[in-house]
Amino acid sequence: MLTRSDFEKLDATDDLASFREEFLLPEGVVYLDGNSLGALPKASASRAEQVVRREWGQDLIKSWNKAGWVSLSERIGDKIAALIGAAPGEVVACDATGINLYKALGMALSLRPERKKILVEGSNFPTDLYVTQGLVQQLDRGHEIVYAEHEEILDAITEEVAVVSLIHVHYKTGRLLDMKAITEKAHAVGALVIWDLCHSAGAVPVDLNGCRADFAVGCGYKYLNGGPGAPGFIFVARRHQGQAIQPLTGWFGHEAPFEFHRDYRPAKTIRQMLTGTQPIVSLSLLEEGVDILARTDMNKIRRKSSLMGDLFIQLVEEQLDGFGFELASPRAAEERGSQVSLRHEQGYAIMQALIAENIIGDFRAPDIVRFGFTPLYLRYVDIWDAVAGLRRVMEQKLWDLPDYQAKAAVT
Amino acid sequence: MLTRSDFEKLDATDDLASFREEFLLPEGVVYLDGNSLGALPKASASRAEQVVRREWGQDLIKSWNKAGWVSLSERIGDKIAALIGAAPGEVVACDATGINLYKALGMALSLRPERKKILVEGSNFPTDLYVTQGLVQQLDRGHEIVYAEHEEILDAITEEVAVVSLIHVHYKTGRLLDMKAITEKAHAVGALVIWDLCHSAGAVPVDLNGCRADFAVGCGYKYLNGGPGAPGFIFVARRHQGQAIQPLTGWFGHEAPFEFHRDYRPAKTIRQMLTGTQPIVSLSLLEEGVDILARTDMNKIRRKSSLMGDLFIQLVEEQLDGFGFELASPRAAEERGSQVSLRHEQGYAIMQALIAENIIGDFRAPDIVRFGFTPLYLRYVDIWDAVAGLRRVMEQKLWDLPDYQAKAAVT
Repeated sequence: MLTRSDFEKLDATDDLASFREEFLLPEGVVYLDGNSLGALPKASASRAEQVVRREWGQDLIKSWNKAGWVSLSERIGDKIAALIGAAPGEVVACDATGINLYKALGMALSLRPERKKILVEGSNFPTDLYVTQGLVQQLDRGHEIVYAEHEEILDAITEEVAVVSLIHVHYKTGRLLDMKAITEKAHAVGALVIWDLCHSAGAVPVDLNGCRADFAVGCGYKYLNGGPGAPGFIFVARRHQGQAIQPLTGWFGHEAPFEFHRDYRPAKTIRQMLTGTQPIVSLSLLEEGVDILARTDMNKIRRKSSLMGDLFIQLVEEQLDGFGFELASPRAAEERGSQVSLRHEQGYAIMQALIAENIIGDFRAPDIVRFGFTPLYLRYVDIWDAVAGLRRVMEQKLWDLPDYQAKAAVT
Repeated sequence: MLTRSDFEKLDATDDLASFREEFLLPEGVVYLDGNSLGALPKASASRAEQVVRREWGQDLIKSWNKAGWVSLSERIGDKIAALIGAAPGEVVACDATGINLYKALGMALSLRPERKKILVEGSNFPTDLYVTQGLVQQLDRGHEIVYAEHEEILDAITEEVAVVSLIHVHYKTGRLLDMKAITEKAHAVGALVIWDLCHSAGAVPVDLNGCRADFAVGCGYKYLNGGPGAPGFIFVARRHQGQAIQPLTGWFGHEAPFEFHRDYRPAKTIRQMLTGTQPIVSLSLLEEGVDILARTDMNKIRRKSSLMGDLFIQLVEEQLDGFGFELASPRAAEERGSQVSLRHEQGYAIMQALIAENIIGDFRAPDIVRFGFTPLYLRYVDIWDAVAGLRRVMEQKLWDLPDYQAKAAVT
């Protein structure tokens, strides 16, 4: 049986431990929700002040050049590229994930005009599905969305498929897809692949170019610690740039945006994926989050989060036997992203009670409680304390309050 | 001839003068570029710290409910609505103007499926044109973009036109279109109208519902003082809500976003215009800018900015005769927004020299120098000082430097 001192020992020799000092975390809270909203880097708090008071307040419009706002999306994009196996000039930071997916899907479909099927996982994060459904309806050209789950995906990739659009690490279960095998299969039949890296970027090693991925999108506010609603990012493999255009053709994607021509001429570079002016304050904070990751190593992060996940599962089995939890994530670390999800019919109420104990995970309907592992600012003892708290909630039935039974909107 | 003391007297009796205290302005600078990037409200600097350190840093994911992030777009939208003659529930704050225009245009076209013409002004801000061109190309359904300038617009609105998409105050010249007459003509022939309020919202009184406008979009970082790249906004008249859907169908526009259904079901309200998660830090700052405007009166702002424009033009005529400037804005205040533009073949170099004198306007290719009047934080003497500086630049030929002749990217 594991004891708390096992976890203390792991912390004592953790070579990522010092990164915790770079974050401003609330006192007494075990935060296992960095897969929904990453914690605040100290540098981001200073950066916010600099961008607001100095760049905006003092330098005003000059900051577009002086502070580099005009190329901030590309600068951050290059830094994100280094985390996901992409090259400089293949990624830009901008917009929300759904909007970026719309661009990628629009561009991908125009590269495969003769094909009508789009393969997605029906259990993917809804915005990915909604964006796909919206684009298909808008184009009205007989595209068909094929829904396939996990083990059905490879077989469903046929020569009729234009685009395969999948989430790499599943938002609910944490299940990790085999990016290389799926991309290879897609290419073998002439299809393109879009990878949603929302739960991968900054969480697990990703090698987009090693897998010859075509497109990818991802989120800035989860494992990249970019702040609430931080802009996301979009990757377009160099070989596709300039071969087709993405549909949201705004001025930042023009070949010469500041010449104010009447007619759109797409940039032949990754800049074509930009549309309008980005929210500079939020975008700047994303850079600080990414910069922390740039100073570490995705393999180290992966090792720590895998071990955290393994230990969490072991503790759940040792400490929570008989309380009705079922593991919703793959048991094997190599098939799992940076989270562990449990099913429980009282999942919503349990998570509310756990949050009241200052242990923060989240709930995903209908019955999933999620725990995210973010090695940059979590200690191993946090894993012990989280499960100890969960045991308290179950033993003392702290979840059985009328308030917790009335569901509220939770993100 | 006007003298500086005339301007001092106007300042002494200006009932908007106290608002200047609510902004953090750089020392010794005359800032006439609030039509490109509005100045920093003091409250925004505090709000940034609160959102970053407390809401993000301390309350983390709880802030979606506790700090109201989840409905921030709607809350700010309702406040903007009050500035532009719209009702609560008709406006949301989100995304960049180009993306919002794409949504509005997509929705408008689906309300007029049998019509194929889209009427725009070819001299409009390019992103509006690019977005329109991109959507037409993407739909590939034989839509035709009809370009008409100012005085040609009314005649060009025929029964073949599906949508008229115009900028209310022209970004280059400041020319104000007759929203009521154009909207009436469009409705008389069965067309819909989208108004781009980028240079109107917070600058001139706008009465969308009084004009029975159908759609509008606008910018958060100009006269609304929302900060660099602040999210914009979109207006959909209540009567169109639920009648068609906008094409960027993300999870925030779903009827029940937190139920995570597989299939998109559009919200029947203004929320359908949302797509993904908004950049909360930037969005929060927009609220502070809008709140200042809510405490004043668009008619007072309009009176002051009109007078400022009149005085500026008079001073240019009195002080800059013979230096080659030509008025590019309408002379009559009632036909002009909140800016005055001058043409000069050395416009770029002149603006560079003027900025070096700490008088900040901007340049728009090929030959326009723009001066924006923002009554909340400008004094009448600033108008005098700006023209005095411009006279210095011309008399001493300060613009005639090799550096200024080499054009750089300017926004």
